[in-house]
Amino acid sequence: MDVLCGVIMGSDSDLPVMSEASKTLENFGIPHEVTIVSAHRTPERLRHYATTAKERGLRVIIAGAGGAAHLPGMVAAMTTLPVVGVPVKTSALSGVDSLHSIVQMPKGVPVATVAIGNATNAGILAARILAAAPGEFADRLTQKLDKYAKDQETQVLHKAKQLESIGWRQYLTREGAPKSNTVM
Amino acid sequence: MDVLCGVIMGSDSDLPVMSEASKTLENFGIPHEVTIVSAHRTPERLRHYATTAKERGLRVIIAGAGGAAHLPGMVAAMTTLPVVGVPVKTSALSGVDSLHSIVQMPKGVPVATVAIGNATNAGILAARILAAAPGEFADRLTQKLDKYAKDQETQVLHKAKQLESIGWRQYLTREGAPKSNTVM
Amino acid sequence: MDVLCGVIMGSDSDLPVMSEASKTLENFGIPHEVTIVSAHRTPERLRHYATTAKERGLRVIIAGAGGAAHLPGMVAAMTTLPVVGVPVKTSALSGVDSLHSIVQMPKGVPVATVAIGNATNAGILAARILAAAPGEFADRLTQKLDKYAKDQETQVLHKAKQLESIGWRQYLTREGAPKSNTVM
Amino acid sequence: MDVLCGVIMGSDSDLPVMSEASKTLENFGIPHEVTIVSAHRTPERLRHYATTAKERGLRVIIAGAGGAAHLPGMVAAMTTLPVVGVPVKTSALSGVDSLHSIVQMPKGVPVATVAIGNATNAGILAARILAAAPGEFADRLTQKLDKYAKDQETQVLHKAKQLESIGWRQYLTREGAPKSNTVM
Amino acid sequence: MDVLCGVIMGSDSDLPVMSEASKTLENFGIPHEVTIVSAHRTPERLRHYATTAKERGLRVIIAGAGGAAHLPGMVAAMTTLPVVGVPVKTSALSGVDSLHSIVQMPKGVPVATVAIGNATNAGILAARILAAAPGEFADRLTQKLDKYAKDQETQVLHKAKQLESIGWRQYLTREGAPKSNTVM
Amino acid sequence: MDVLCGVIMGSDSDLPVMSEASKTLENFGIPHEVTIVSAHRTPERLRHYATTAKERGLRVIIAGAGGAAHLPGMVAAMTTLPVVGVPVKTSALSGVDSLHSIVQMPKGVPVATVAIGNATNAGILAARILAAAPGEFADRLTQKLDKYAKDQETQVLHKAKQLESIGWRQYLTREGAPKSNTVM
Amino acid sequence: MDVLCGVIMGSDSDLPVMSEASKTLENFGIPHEVTIVSAHRTPERLRHYATTAKERGLRVIIAGAGGAAHLPGMVAAMTTLPVVGVPVKTSALSGVDSLHSIVQMPKGVPVATVAIGNATNAGILAARILAAAPGEFADRLTQKLDKYAKDQETQVLHKAKQLESIGWRQYLTREGAPKSNTVM
Amino acid sequence: MDVLCGVIMGSDSDLPVMSEASKTLENFGIPHEVTIVSAHRTPERLRHYATTAKERGLRVIIAGAGGAAHLPGMVAAMTTLPVVGVPVKTSALSGVDSLHSIVQMPKGVPVATVAIGNATNAGILAARILAAAPGEFADRLTQKLDKYAKDQETQVLHKAKQLESIGWRQYLTREGAPKSNTVM
Repeated sequence: MDVLCGVIMGSDSDLPVMSEASKTLENFGIPHEVTIVSAHRTPERLRHYATTAKERGLRVIIAGAGGAAHLPGMVAAMTTLPVVGVPVKTSALSGVDSLHSIVQMPKGVPVATVAIGNATNAGILAARILAAAPGEFADRLTQKLDKYAKDQETQVLHKAKQLESIGWRQYLTREGAPKSNTVM
Repeated sequence: MDVLCGVIMGSDSDLPVMSEASKTLENFGIPHEVTIVSAHRTPERLRHYATTAKERGLRVIIAGAGGAAHLPGMVAAMTTLPVVGVPVKTSALSGVDSLHSIVQMPKGVPVATVAIGNATNAGILAARILAAAPGEFADRLTQKLDKYAKDQETQVLHKAKQLESIGWRQYLTREGAPKSNTVM
Repeated sequence: MDVLCGVIMGSDSDLPVMSEASKTLENFGIPHEVTIVSAHRTPERLRHYATTAKERGLRVIIAGAGGAAHLPGMVAAMTTLPVVGVPVKTSALSGVDSLHSIVQMPKGVPVATVAIGNATNAGILAARILAAAPGEFADRLTQKLDKYAKDQETQVLHKAKQLESIGWRQYLTREGAPKSNTVM
Repeated sequence: MDVLCGVIMGSDSDLPVMSEASKTLENFGIPHEVTIVSAHRTPERLRHYATTAKERGLRVIIAGAGGAAHLPGMVAAMTTLPVVGVPVKTSALSGVDSLHSIVQMPKGVPVATVAIGNATNAGILAARILAAAPGEFADRLTQKLDKYAKDQETQVLHKAKQLESIGWRQYLTREGAPKSNTVM
Repeated sequence: MDVLCGVIMGSDSDLPVMSEASKTLENFGIPHEVTIVSAHRTPERLRHYATTAKERGLRVIIAGAGGAAHLPGMVAAMTTLPVVGVPVKTSALSGVDSLHSIVQMPKGVPVATVAIGNATNAGILAARILAAAPGEFADRLTQKLDKYAKDQETQVLHKAKQLESIGWRQYLTREGAPKSNTVM
Repeated sequence: MDVLCGVIMGSDSDLPVMSEASKTLENFGIPHEVTIVSAHRTPERLRHYATTAKERGLRVIIAGAGGAAHLPGMVAAMTTLPVVGVPVKTSALSGVDSLHSIVQMPKGVPVATVAIGNATNAGILAARILAAAPGEFADRLTQKLDKYAKDQETQVLHKAKQLESIGWRQYLTREGAPKSNTVM
Repeated sequence: MDVLCGVIMGSDSDLPVMSEASKTLENFGIPHEVTIVSAHRTPERLRHYATTAKERGLRVIIAGAGGAAHLPGMVAAMTTLPVVGVPVKTSALSGVDSLHSIVQMPKGVPVATVAIGNATNAGILAARILAAAPGEFADRLTQKLDKYAKDQETQVLHKAKQLESIGWRQYLTREGAPKSNTVM
Repeated sequence: MDVLCGVIMGSDSDLPVMSEASKTLENFGIPHEVTIVSAHRTPERLRHYATTAKERGLRVIIAGAGGAAHLPGMVAAMTTLPVVGVPVKTSALSGVDSLHSIVQMPKGVPVATVAIGNATNAGILAARILAAAPGEFADRLTQKLDKYAKDQETQVLHKAKQLESIGWRQYLTREGAPKSNTVM
């Protein structure tokens, strides 16, 4: 089956974050490609990637970048495909710079922005976009998305039940229990 | 033709912003509906709207809200359709609160967030999502998106030519010339 | 005695923070329950929990969540009980996102928000709310709150006296002395 | 009937905001008093107000202030009553300073903080707190809170219906239609 | 004489701000061109402008843009000329988004960023850059920059003298006296 | 009597704000001078002013500036007198830039920073500093500061009494009543 | 000699930061006391401390606190002595909350605020304030402040000379060389 | 050959960051000097350095500082050379204070600001400025800048190829592979 989704990032230092998008697409059985396209260091590659994406059969592009993150917006400027942007967390500004550079696009060229560092959600959003189409593939994808949501619900219900039955003191001392006072 | 896109907002005070999404969808010939669904004041309506959206034929939902803006995320939690979130500008925090409440969704439930107050881009993103599908309707939509991009380009080229030919002093004194030192 | 307070959180990763609320309620002898209710992953459970809370005898709900933290506001939208919101600290935005998503509620649906990560204060606030009622239970609770404040005062006075008598150099070298240049 | 709620503010310049709390309490039939207590300019009055509030029969205090807003926290430090804090919007920092000064209370002394400038919600929160008690007054208050929520829902449903039936273009041209692109 | 500096902006709505750069260059007698180049709406024009700038004789480029401001960084990615970036003030985020998108460039591609909305300083910086070269033109430019600094000093000294002699009350009532409590 | 306090500012555009410092010093009978000293445009004047201030008899300097506000810190670097810094509100960043540039001084060179735009407090702080000395002048100044505090208290008590007696509805309709929902 | 300066803090967890103020005062030979005064947990002690400070001979008070840091402002409200405020760094908001709560005081009650966590500068500022008085003690203190500034200058000049002579590569490999990419 | 570029910093604690500027200048074969000049601790040295820089043959100055970072702006005020400012990351405010203090310069005195902590880009910007001049040295520098850009491109293309060929799972397990979820 054709590659339907491109997962691109500005640098291989974004890979630990962006690989979550690939994992998620795999889980949904969505054929995709993963590569590096730098808006600032490979502007020709950017142009080639963006302008040929549609004809190569891609139907959605996930782009992650940090700091003055121009990749998602510049790709969106050179294709009509929906582009999902992942603001990667940065050392000094924690990804607020990435978020501003990706989400605050001017009228005419939208980027579908997800939470800072949340490439998993970029993968799910791509799946929802592909599932929003008519046809069998989309229908199967919708079933998977339904199942995914159901599984999430089941997992929470299971944990809730366990927490209620053993109490939080015991829950927190189990192996693998959450320790940090910071989430996400 | 079926309604393909729902444009919802938390309050009618969001309408001056959100009507731009409807205008944009109209321009692309996308059948859509516009209504009010408040996460906090009509939670039952929210649930009904979100859980029946897919079966009613909707393929994408645009949701706008301001402040502790829970509407886009809660809709996304109750459907597998792609949800586009518009953070509406607020009086005290300028929409930073809206942006945080919409974009910072946890793993599992993405909202495709656009710029603060930029409902036009929400409309274009919905069009891109619908155009990313196989089929004739999507192909026609892609052509319209191509034309839209081309028109934007032409418009800028025209303005650039005019600015170059008459100079900025005369350009700024024309009727309808931009005056403010603030953009977007 | 009936359960008077519900302590809920969006995920078990919030438990290290939220367990402090439970500890505090225990100290004040307030019967309570602790469980997981996810606004995004278990919207049905959220609805059931919120709409039945009052009839089950709960008189105050403490809800903690991080990021686009919709749990406290959505619970508040589905009950008339007072809801205390705990913004949990997040990795990228340090809980500013959680704070905005919880405190900036629109007119009509308040959430009683406490400091980022301060579930202890959520427990004390719940105790103050329960103590603000007429009746013997409330009066006893008020006495406990008075004693709690008095104990805090005594503890500070004791430390002040010790610091004054041994000097800060010796104070800082005692076992268990504070080391970090960061508080709270 | 006894005065149950005190509405205090640091300066009469807070009154345009804080009067909304009084209006809301009136609507719920809650006997209350409205006055000025400045933490910085009348520290003795602050002490007297806070330490006698409980014995005077107050059961909840609403305190609003702007900038380095110390009033809510200092009142909370001198009473065991629940204190609801309203961060008033400021000229330079839009109330972010007020919010930080009110919500970020240290362990031991909570302030139930509502949104910047949202004194209406402070009134509703006070009503919810008073309704969370046993007894007839609380039961009647709960009924009023139920009705308030129901009325809000009805109002939204009505507006939604109207918007759906006349379309947003006509809706926006009606007298009294929302105009601004900023909400809250 | 050849055009030495290009002043470009993402949209003609940036012109009221960016025209100050042109005025400043005029005052220093620096031949320059002013035009519109949109990174998002005219990516081909951007590429052509940036890649031919050096061979056309330009020695510095001033680029202004607002929001997710990609123009300065993308130009800098496609030329080795120094690029001066002007973050234009935006409605919701006051230009903080523009500043982050322009200044936070990754290693390898710098943008010389000036203050939000301060296109005058972009012009002066361009003059300083051109004056930093060997040769007669640069020497004359340095003399003009020296004179500019001296004139600024003289102007302040004159105002200081006047303020000291007539006192601030009279100074503030003169025609053209500053009124606002906000500067820059 | 000798001039004891210098009130300086970076530009005459700061005068509407900084004149409040002069008014306050007048009210306390503190001989002072008001002038313009620009760190960036008159660095020689800055050096001369700062290094001769002590020998000219000044005992405290109030310095106000906006944006990258270097004046207070640079003066503090060139004198051992206490320097009070007033961050002036700016158009794009509301004075947050001014505040950071003034308050975040490195170890060794403190600036006594007051609230954004609050030159009145700079004047009072200068009075407190002068009153903290031994001697008759300081004692008289302390008496004035005591009276000032007492007058503030009286004024609040008067307003509180009036508000309590006529109610907030009538209070808000009096001539000169506060109207805005923004304070400070 | 009498105690001239009080160094107080809201909790002993502030001591690692605030002890730097004491060290600095020691270096300048300024008799001082160090103790704990909590605005929220010991309001009576706060009142007693602040209202008797002047009569006990104190001439300046240094107060440090974190989060909703009310101590400096409340002390300043109850004395006419100059109060130096130290915003202590906090875990979630890095001391921005402390800074806002301390510096943004309303008209009438100033706090001389120094940088986040910079208690050394609070000590130096207290020394400058005490040195700004007439008399022999002040003159000696001025000499010490002059010497302190001179020593700082000498130290920098020495380091500069060393850096210039051995080059940065060798400088960075010396024992005790700075390693971190973060300062202050 | 003459020293063309000065790399200065406010303290040797800035050296781990600022040494990257020197490394970069070395790579481009630009003769330069590295030293410490503190605006606050050595104001005389600052004046001497800035006012003699041009006559000593310097053509660009790179200045780094943290917190209330006055060095770059004060140097720019005392020379007509282009000054490149590097905001150094700080402990409490992550360099946002440094950025504001450096970039928000008033009209008349620009500082060419680069990203927080990005001294590499300061070096490249200096190279671009020196290359923007006429003459053989500049031409050779332009060739080096072209080669630098080409090398960057090649490096990305190589990594992209490798990532595509071995897949991200294997790529991430290679020695030296990126691990962190934070970039820049």
